[in-house]
Amino acid sequence: MLTRIDHIGIACFDLDATVEFYRATYGFEVHHSEINEEQGVREAMLRINGTDDGAASYLQLLQPIREDSPVGKWLAKNGEGVHHIAFGTADVDADSEGIRDKGVRVLYDKPRRGSMDSRITFLHPKDCHGVLTEIVTAASAQAPGDSSGH
Amino acid sequence: MLTRIDHIGIACFDLDATVEFYRATYGFEVHHSEINEEQGVREAMLRINGTDDGAASYLQLLQPIREDSPVGKWLAKNGEGVHHIAFGTADVDADSEGIRDKGVRVLYDKPRRGSMDSRITFLHPKDCHGVLTEIVTAASAQAPGDSSGH
Repeated sequence: MLTRIDHIGIACFDLDATVEFYRATYGFEVHHSEINEEQGVREAMLRINGTDDGAASYLQLLQPIREDSPVGKWLAKNGEGVHHIAFGTADVDADSEGIRDKGVRVLYDKPRRGSMDSRITFLHPKDCHGVLTEIVTAASAQAPGDSSGH
Repeated sequence: MLTRIDHIGIACFDLDATVEFYRATYGFEVHHSEINEEQGVREAMLRINGTDDGAASYLQLLQPIREDSPVGKWLAKNGEGVHHIAFGTADVDADSEGIRDKGVRVLYDKPRRGSMDSRITFLHPKDCHGVLTEIVTAASAQAPGDSSGH
């Protein structure tokens, strides 16, 4: 069951400049930053608010580290802007399988590692009215010792 | 002070079909629907979660009722997808003036009426790293009798 807007993923050319824009304009601060080699991005998570399922909603700012990464190719075509949206669930495995059973293309066979040791998958935007949609289970919602997606 | 992701605005060609997609795929239900003649849209608000500032986060599904409306022109150019993101505040007037003072173009001189009797304004996407950004004060956060934006 999807219980929150987990994050909005925003692609940018210059992560540091974009982080500074969000800080200077709105006062949003970086909660976490990392490089995800598999996804081919540098990223910063800005925590915006807590959510009533015990988690939080973030902006995820993404700069490609390779031109041939999915975000790199998307940026070259579209320019800066909203790249994807993500819904949070306690069980990305069950929810993504349930969604696959409804005929929506799920892009990974099994969830992969996302920001902050979350486990994530993506749904094909053409099956979601044009919206690249991520499903995510936060690390804090995973069973202790669960590293099946890492 | 911006205290939540208020909503993600998604432009679609067929509001009823898109509402049905979100219901059938994720179980999201329509919390509110209306026609905003000024904005030139039919819209449905799907409530996703509560937020720790006492409000909530929504998906806002938008279908243009006129081809020459901003959403209609955007759809003709881009196809279906994320049209804008919105941050919630208790005081859209003060925050939008503060943002304007930082050199970001605010699209309305004064906030206008948004979904569910909220008061809203927009920031120019070219000043926001490609993201059309809305600032919104929910009706419940406005002082009793405050109709300055209606």
